[in-house]
Amino acid sequence: MGHIITLTTDFGLADPYVAAMKGVILGINPEAVVVDVSHEVAPQRIVQAVYLTGCAWPHFPPGSIHVAVADPGVGTERRAIVVEGAHGLYVGPDNGVLSAALPEEARSMTGGEGPAAIPVPQGYHAFRIAEPRFMRQPVSDTFHGRDVFAPAAAHLSLGVSPAELGEPVDSLVALPPIRAGRRADGALAGHVVHADRFGNLVTDVRVEDLPLGRLLVEIAGRSVAGPARTYAEAHGLTALVGSSGYLEVAAPGGSAAASLGADVGEAVVVRAAG
Amino acid sequence: MGHIITLTTDFGLADPYVAAMKGVILGINPEAVVVDVSHEVAPQRIVQAVYLTGCAWPHFPPGSIHVAVADPGVGTERRAIVVEGAHGLYVGPDNGVLSAALPEEARSMTGGEGPAAIPVPQGYHAFRIAEPRFMRQPVSDTFHGRDVFAPAAAHLSLGVSPAELGEPVDSLVALPPIRAGRRADGALAGHVVHADRFGNLVTDVRVEDLPLGRLLVEIAGRSVAGPARTYAEAHGLTALVGSSGYLEVAAPGGSAAASLGADVGEAVVVRAAG
Amino acid sequence: MGHIITLTTDFGLADPYVAAMKGVILGINPEAVVVDVSHEVAPQRIVQAVYLTGCAWPHFPPGSIHVAVADPGVGTERRAIVVEGAHGLYVGPDNGVLSAALPEEARSMTGGEGPAAIPVPQGYHAFRIAEPRFMRQPVSDTFHGRDVFAPAAAHLSLGVSPAELGEPVDSLVALPPIRAGRRADGALAGHVVHADRFGNLVTDVRVEDLPLGRLLVEIAGRSVAGPARTYAEAHGLTALVGSSGYLEVAAPGGSAAASLGADVGEAVVVRAAG
Repeated sequence: MGHIITLTTDFGLADPYVAAMKGVILGINPEAVVVDVSHEVAPQRIVQAVYLTGCAWPHFPPGSIHVAVADPGVGTERRAIVVEGAHGLYVGPDNGVLSAALPEEARSMTGGEGPAAIPVPQGYHAFRIAEPRFMRQPVSDTFHGRDVFAPAAAHLSLGVSPAELGEPVDSLVALPPIRAGRRADGALAGHVVHADRFGNLVTDVRVEDLPLGRLLVEIAGRSVAGPARTYAEAHGLTALVGSSGYLEVAAPGGSAAASLGADVGEAVVVRAAG
Repeated sequence: MGHIITLTTDFGLADPYVAAMKGVILGINPEAVVVDVSHEVAPQRIVQAVYLTGCAWPHFPPGSIHVAVADPGVGTERRAIVVEGAHGLYVGPDNGVLSAALPEEARSMTGGEGPAAIPVPQGYHAFRIAEPRFMRQPVSDTFHGRDVFAPAAAHLSLGVSPAELGEPVDSLVALPPIRAGRRADGALAGHVVHADRFGNLVTDVRVEDLPLGRLLVEIAGRSVAGPARTYAEAHGLTALVGSSGYLEVAAPGGSAAASLGADVGEAVVVRAAG
Repeated sequence: MGHIITLTTDFGLADPYVAAMKGVILGINPEAVVVDVSHEVAPQRIVQAVYLTGCAWPHFPPGSIHVAVADPGVGTERRAIVVEGAHGLYVGPDNGVLSAALPEEARSMTGGEGPAAIPVPQGYHAFRIAEPRFMRQPVSDTFHGRDVFAPAAAHLSLGVSPAELGEPVDSLVALPPIRAGRRADGALAGHVVHADRFGNLVTDVRVEDLPLGRLLVEIAGRSVAGPARTYAEAHGLTALVGSSGYLEVAAPGGSAAASLGADVGEAVVVRAAG
């Protein structure tokens, strides 16, 4: 597999944690190309890490190694795993944070709202990271990013096979797909899943599910029309399909989040207009 | 041209946008060395991107490829361009965000206050980015950073010639120079163009325009003396020439921005003291 | 020596200063691998830079070149130095910011509370950075990060010997060790030295100094029990040994800094429980 290693964490960039991970990686594989996806995941908000990695990982070349760490259970019995998929390797705690690596059908098997164990999807393989010689020793109980996940990724980038890291596992924890459901009346009922730097409110409504033609989005007591094709053509609040295929509510030149007083979790209902 | 690609955007580092650009670049040229200039340009504030790139780009080696994206008109008829200059290639929307690549004389041809079309300066070449095979397909209407500018830069870094990306253009949009004017009484009348992390207020007054000897800077109802040579020698507010050749007002050990209650846009008048 | 160059500064990532340093480095050594440790050191808070680098530098491979810049005295008579240690080279102003490179015994010779000159420790070498041909010319009086330290690091990464940069020095400025003292009654009396992104309050109490068994930590008028082994096992406030060997007070799932209203400098007293 390739030598690109991406990092997504809730560590921020002010603290020394990300740098420690990079030092460990470069100590094992000086040729690794380490790329930050985001370290601004809100502390331990796994679902946000899954949204961000779902937008970023698909754009990296096949064979990249992706590490994601948002890990409230660090040091406990939760497993450390590597997932081998069609396009790369995914390294992190087995708490759902690697869900963006998995196909939507598989993630649907979680059933309810939150993380749940699902069988390893067909065509995928998953292994426990358990082999001490591929860890930084001694392994701290509070920083597996540095001591378990970074070294695992670095060894994988050198050509170590995922199966060498530990026993295969046949189930793993996943989050449900980020995809709004359909109500009995045909409307899509979803939520805001991300507010970006521009104040765009990204929802879990997928472009594939949208009705043809004009839309009406109910959000925070307002009705917003769409879809606009570009930010520039809109006047005031508008709805449009963002670059990752999710419907978003935007206020070009301003912040939809601010004008609506809305944030992650806000309910949205989308229906064909008129 | 070389393999260094710098990125300057208003995307921030929390969202997945910068990582998506890096993934696209590395997918096309795994040997590219991608360097962040800043992603903290205020949303769509093109003039700030021009200030920041003007301070950073000159320090990169000749042949570097510089991408700048602050792009409120993404997806509209505004052009995507590459500018070929003496020291490198510059990739971005044709809205003035690449102005730091251009000589000051050329930028003076904008005349007024804001962005305006000017002829491509002598010795420079500019081309439209229009060739679909050098774009990520399908091209989104809202994220040309990922789908147009990142792939263009990556292909250029592999040796694709700018002329292969599209037709030459003979004019491009530029911002006026960052340079305070002189009043009838000989004083320099300018503005604060940047407040940095230390609270230093960087003005558009160039070192070349300063009178010899002691100065007096009027700002926010105060008179500040200068120039100091170093931050350390100053007591309280002082004026000094910063590392990019602009006069700045500083409060060493504190923040001039906070003590003056001043920010970008604040007027300054500079004259010889006494 | 190797080609990894790490950067730690108080420049932030919004301003163009870090990018200018990287441009200068890559212009001298295009093969350098530049890694950010942190640029979020509070302006000129040297002691914080020393804490952060103390956590990060040990994880980089031997032969790495580490640059640290928090430099209120830039442009004055304070020296620019390179320290050659067992594991790498350290480049920065001679104001104590490189202290994490030095052994604790040597740093103890500072005596009191703050920075003081100590002899260069046995087995270490230190040299003044004074040779103009290894600087970017002209050298600005306000930005030695770009004009002195970045070029020095880049030249070192190309194999230039530290002794070529300037005369050896026999003393250098250091900060005292980050290590709580012991009171007459046997309790450890220290301070919070860092509040991380999770709100964990890292103290200067070293794991080596802790009594065996259960602990009681007095902080901000509260008594906190410990040590927990993992964040997950704690309920409410807890004390545990963090990944760099310092005792920290945490509120898993929340912020100890917020719940205690405590920050850097807060006093802590640690004693055996019961």
